[in-house]
Amino acid sequence: MKRIFEIDPWRVVTHQFKEEDKRLQESMTAIGNDYMGLRGNFEEGYSGDSLQGTYLAGVWFPDKTRVGWWKNGYPEYFGKSINAPSFIGLEITINDEKLDLAKVNFSDFELSLDMHQGLLTRSFIYEGKDVKVKFEFERFLHITLKEAALIKVKATVLSGEAHIEYKSTLDGKVVNEDSNYDEYFWLPIEEDQEARTIQVKTKENNFGVPQFTVLLKESLRHEGQAVTTEVASQEAKLAETFAIHLAEGESYEVEKDVIVVTSRDVADEDQKAKASELMAQLQSKTFEENLADHTAAWQKRWDMSDVVIAGDEAAQQGIRFNILQLFMTYYGEDERLNVGPKGFTGEKYGGATYWDTEAYIVPMYLGITKPEVTKALLQYRHDQLEGAYHNAKQQGLAGALFPMVTFTGVECHNEWEITFEEIHRNADIPFAIYQYTNYTGDESYVKDEGMDVLVGTARFWADRVHFSKWRNKYVIHGVTGPNEYENNVNNNWFTNTMARWLIKYTLERLPKATEEAQKRVNVTEEEKAKWQDIVDNMYLGEDKNLGIFLQQDDFLDKDIRPVSSIPEGQRPINQHWSWDKILRSPFIKQADVLQGIYFLNDEYTMEQKEKNFDFYEPLTVHESSLSPCIHSILAAELGKKEKAVELYQRTARLDLDNYNNDTVDGLHITSMSGSWLAIVQGFAGMRYNNDQLSFKPFIPDDWNKYSFKINYRDRLIQVEVDQAGSKLTLIKGENLPVLVSGKEVELKEGETINA
Amino acid sequence: MKRIFEIDPWRVVTHQFKEEDKRLQESMTAIGNDYMGLRGNFEEGYSGDSLQGTYLAGVWFPDKTRVGWWKNGYPEYFGKSINAPSFIGLEITINDEKLDLAKVNFSDFELSLDMHQGLLTRSFIYEGKDVKVKFEFERFLHITLKEAALIKVKATVLSGEAHIEYKSTLDGKVVNEDSNYDEYFWLPIEEDQEARTIQVKTKENNFGVPQFTVLLKESLRHEGQAVTTEVASQEAKLAETFAIHLAEGESYEVEKDVIVVTSRDVADEDQKAKASELMAQLQSKTFEENLADHTAAWQKRWDMSDVVIAGDEAAQQGIRFNILQLFMTYYGEDERLNVGPKGFTGEKYGGATYWDTEAYIVPMYLGITKPEVTKALLQYRHDQLEGAYHNAKQQGLAGALFPMVTFTGVECHNEWEITFEEIHRNADIPFAIYQYTNYTGDESYVKDEGMDVLVGTARFWADRVHFSKWRNKYVIHGVTGPNEYENNVNNNWFTNTMARWLIKYTLERLPKATEEAQKRVNVTEEEKAKWQDIVDNMYLGEDKNLGIFLQQDDFLDKDIRPVSSIPEGQRPINQHWSWDKILRSPFIKQADVLQGIYFLNDEYTMEQKEKNFDFYEPLTVHESSLSPCIHSILAAELGKKEKAVELYQRTARLDLDNYNNDTVDGLHITSMSGSWLAIVQGFAGMRYNNDQLSFKPFIPDDWNKYSFKINYRDRLIQVEVDQAGSKLTLIKGENLPVLVSGKEVELKEGETINA
Repeated sequence: MKRIFEIDPWRVVTHQFKEEDKRLQESMTAIGNDYMGLRGNFEEGYSGDSLQGTYLAGVWFPDKTRVGWWKNGYPEYFGKSINAPSFIGLEITINDEKLDLAKVNFSDFELSLDMHQGLLTRSFIYEGKDVKVKFEFERFLHITLKEAALIKVKATVLSGEAHIEYKSTLDGKVVNEDSNYDEYFWLPIEEDQEARTIQVKTKENNFGVPQFTVLLKESLRHEGQAVTTEVASQEAKLAETFAIHLAEGESYEVEKDVIVVTSRDVADEDQKAKASELMAQLQSKTFEENLADHTAAWQKRWDMSDVVIAGDEAAQQGIRFNILQLFMTYYGEDERLNVGPKGFTGEKYGGATYWDTEAYIVPMYLGITKPEVTKALLQYRHDQLEGAYHNAKQQGLAGALFPMVTFTGVECHNEWEITFEEIHRNADIPFAIYQYTNYTGDESYVKDEGMDVLVGTARFWADRVHFSKWRNKYVIHGVTGPNEYENNVNNNWFTNTMARWLIKYTLERLPKATEEAQKRVNVTEEEKAKWQDIVDNMYLGEDKNLGIFLQQDDFLDKDIRPVSSIPEGQRPINQHWSWDKILRSPFIKQADVLQGIYFLNDEYTMEQKEKNFDFYEPLTVHESSLSPCIHSILAAELGKKEKAVELYQRTARLDLDNYNNDTVDGLHITSMSGSWLAIVQGFAGMRYNNDQLSFKPFIPDDWNKYSFKINYRDRLIQVEVDQAGSKLTLIKGENLPVLVSGKEVELKEGETINA
Repeated sequence: MKRIFEIDPWRVVTHQFKEEDKRLQESMTAIGNDYMGLRGNFEEGYSGDSLQGTYLAGVWFPDKTRVGWWKNGYPEYFGKSINAPSFIGLEITINDEKLDLAKVNFSDFELSLDMHQGLLTRSFIYEGKDVKVKFEFERFLHITLKEAALIKVKATVLSGEAHIEYKSTLDGKVVNEDSNYDEYFWLPIEEDQEARTIQVKTKENNFGVPQFTVLLKESLRHEGQAVTTEVASQEAKLAETFAIHLAEGESYEVEKDVIVVTSRDVADEDQKAKASELMAQLQSKTFEENLADHTAAWQKRWDMSDVVIAGDEAAQQGIRFNILQLFMTYYGEDERLNVGPKGFTGEKYGGATYWDTEAYIVPMYLGITKPEVTKALLQYRHDQLEGAYHNAKQQGLAGALFPMVTFTGVECHNEWEITFEEIHRNADIPFAIYQYTNYTGDESYVKDEGMDVLVGTARFWADRVHFSKWRNKYVIHGVTGPNEYENNVNNNWFTNTMARWLIKYTLERLPKATEEAQKRVNVTEEEKAKWQDIVDNMYLGEDKNLGIFLQQDDFLDKDIRPVSSIPEGQRPINQHWSWDKILRSPFIKQADVLQGIYFLNDEYTMEQKEKNFDFYEPLTVHESSLSPCIHSILAAELGKKEKAVELYQRTARLDLDNYNNDTVDGLHITSMSGSWLAIVQGFAGMRYNNDQLSFKPFIPDDWNKYSFKINYRDRLIQVEVDQAGSKLTLIKGENLPVLVSGKEVELKEGETINA
């Protein structure tokens, strides 16, 4: 744990600058607008250790996978969102000294991410020889004009005189650290000094992955535009320079406006014109006016999604930071996109799509965004069905297999134990259809496009199971469950359970699908009979004595002992133990059996839940950021309030406190929903199966109050919980019967009910 | 299956040259002298598709392992024998046309590897414009002067006149295909035109792997030494050129002598002098005299090891080819070396040491070489114990773990499912001590150095097992057995059996060890008690109903069906199925349970052997070259003669007939012992446990006779088997009682016994 930012309800702010924390600071001050994003690199450059990162949503490149032990069916490349051309560069020289916080003297440092506005500011006093200059930076990525990045730098001479040179750059000569090791993958197309643009293209590849073109345009706005400007360019780089002279007491503001367009939206030959058009639109308003538009849009998002916690500012800051970063990554405005595990905050996981989206993001977005946002996520998978069919075929199987890691639907990761075996995703991903339908009441998706997904995946499962004559049951061999600390196991209870659920749900929904959908999927009677047989005879391991479901065959053959028995200094085990030791240990990375109990919550008795929780949670090391929230929710349901709070704390400030010592690589975006889920589904006990919204709230002992809003079936509902009890307010929408702690109440618009 | 060489009892010969078979031809005509070796590349060069390969025993380089999913404990590099500087180059130009069989016209091609002499010859008639020249090449790597390579080319003008230019080259600018992809890893040190030497050094690496220096010296011998010679050199290359003029009917011989010394034997600064000294020694004799020395040494090897088969020339050729190639790879004259799976015939498997040596090479070498040869192989592992301790420590375990792939004892391969899990090697490797002791009767090794190996590995196993409260037994989780078509399984019967055997054997031998050895290994009473408990309570899975041992937990939960049920066109499955499908299939790559029954043959009843063979053999796809021989031996023991012969055929001509369609990469050196084992342990039924040599011979129906000699406890014994029966002759040595088909006979020197 390492906390380098101060506690503040609406800001991530620090007054310290330590070189050794630079990368961590950069991760924490990353900003994005779900079109693009960048780490908290400094505009003026920084010669110390730093990870430069600018990322464009949906712009990626194949990383050649060089393995000496290639196995049949391996994808040929590992797709990764690559470091895009950098556009924030604004180098500054004062009286011939280059401004570089690794080298110059400075004081009064402040770095602050304003969460309310989505605005990054930084200020410090440069202390040169005979001169002191205060610099104030502001930066935001516009959320209503997505192609726009705005930067403003104000210099104020506090003492002495300053000859200041500015050099604004666009730089396509960037490399990645985590993939395509140190290769240049952006090829220059054109630098236009007059138009202040550079255009670059990803280099050719042998994998049939499309090449992307990106055009960047910059334009400076500052007082005294007559100041002599020089523009220079070389391959994939452009720089505009000018200088000013300031006497003591004088200030000077420079605004750098940037437009970024890509071949995802605009054809190569139209990019320059489009960028000009967008730049004109941007510059038709002042920096402040643009910021006001941007802030207003953020205000709307916060109105629906803010969670207020009274009495625990650290918790308050944590959940707002999580919501902010999630929304900066994805707000459902482009169906071609999805939520990468690190968003725009680092290179790890390559910005691709994982099952995290459906399992962890969907239930939160259902609550705090419009249904269209979630539907866009469902549509994303539907649009990639062709790739899913391809994946199944690569493994010699029928139907559709959604990939572990992807940009296109085609699998683009290649550890066999993950790609080939962590197939539970192929039920978890369609499970989002069930979630969406349950929550919104909108059956149109599952009746039509959703049926393509359900039948495609059901066909995969029906082929993937095999019948064991020995057990007289259908079994599933050779899988990796959500607990990736087990590989190639047989009859993982979660996988078998979810596969069975998927087939069962498909069979249930099929007769209610549209005629067209039924015709399209064309399920034969014979197929249905086979599916029913699998549903009726799926093997689901359990130990009757212990009253638990068996995570996998042979689980009890392990040396079962609690996490507390791990000697000090050996955690996280994934940083201390060799892989084989982890695999044969009883320790669990993240919810596995309990993930199933969480998903299919109403199918299990409280006794089943408790026995499984009491058996598995003590074995769980929570070394996935996705783990604590699920356990917190179940603990809350079981009345284990202390445990629920303890695990909530691990999820809410995971990055703010650098719990797992890896935030330096980027933020844990897809697990950021965990804190919201822990409060809403855990503390407040929200459930929504069978068209019945219900709550069962409690509040941690040392909190005064918490409140949140949810958007449920065209209603906006506020839930407030304090030590005295809970209040529900129907802010907007038709009357709604709700269960609170088992008691039905009727919500009416404008009314608050104590429950 | 593809047969590109003719059947001949003592030659591998072809009169065809097809461009598409060039690489395959190169593998088949590789030669070596267990100091160095090279593929059958052409002296004059070849511009078509070809794999250049020259390898020096024990000279290797670390290949950086680039995996995006690095797991704790992974070695940092993959060690590989690299392509060494090429020394055979002798380019030829006739009347300004470059001799290049990919381009010129030629006829009367013959390429022949004389197995009796270890001599490679090639001849053809070059048909140029107005000129025909017959070229005859001879090449051998001297087996008594190991640093020497000798090449002779004779040109005879059949018609027209020929101006012939020769260019003899030494070339350090070589790359690898399979590793260190296209990098140059040989750095030039010096080219000395006067001395006709080049000296090169492997480039630096970050892994602490020693850099190797190699010096090559060439010297031409030809009539009329006064012919003008020019010498040119550039970085890591040297060329010597001269030209002659031949009229019709004239011949001309050029001999290229080469000396290769390396930093393994000679310090960098002494290499040039040493090479001169060796060159003088070489050139003190003519080519013919050197060849005579070389051939005489081969004759000695053949005297002891030849297997004669009458009535089946293909089988005869196969077994001689196997013995030749094995001896060209390793003859036990350097304890620092071992037997790479592809010897000096290709890049695959990187020339490193695998457990193949102990399991497949040792039992053959015991029979046909001096005991010292096998002892050198044992000593090799003893010398690498430090590395083995390091490996165990990397995995957080006690004791010593011999590596899967190594040059130094330190693991240098990194698939977790192999490196971390295929640990049965840690009993198979020490099993060679048992084999050696049993066969030779020499107890000195096991009493002393052997005890270090046994105790080191026993300590590993004692830590690696764990006690299952559920089964009330010791179990071993997370392993890969010899059948690599299963990964990360629990309680692999073979692994559990061999681990138990290892501990048991260690406990038995410990009290008989030398006092010094006992002191050195310092096994406590407590340790011994723990070990005994493991021996007494090791879990060994079996199914009493079926009467079989269980390959692993859950094996019977598979969809068990015979190999014959695999649809046509899908074999070998490793070239057609994705890895997950292979893993969950019931199909077995190579002997696993049956490997255990082969190793510990006298511990099982005939009924146990038969039931296990009948259950597992039909599930076995034999997709490892190491598989058929073990099954052939067991089939022979069980009286399943047809099966034994069928599986013998698969092993004997594996490369000659390119059975697995991969000989193009190099020969299957370590499995070449399989054909010898199948004849001697299989057909002739030789066993040697409990100080009792025994045979139980049969002969395939269509063979007239087979005979072989074995070297057993200072005796040379010949065994001859024909359709009438068998004869044993004690060629040399003291009387010896032998069991033949259960009947004891007494062998006496010079006498032949019909049995």
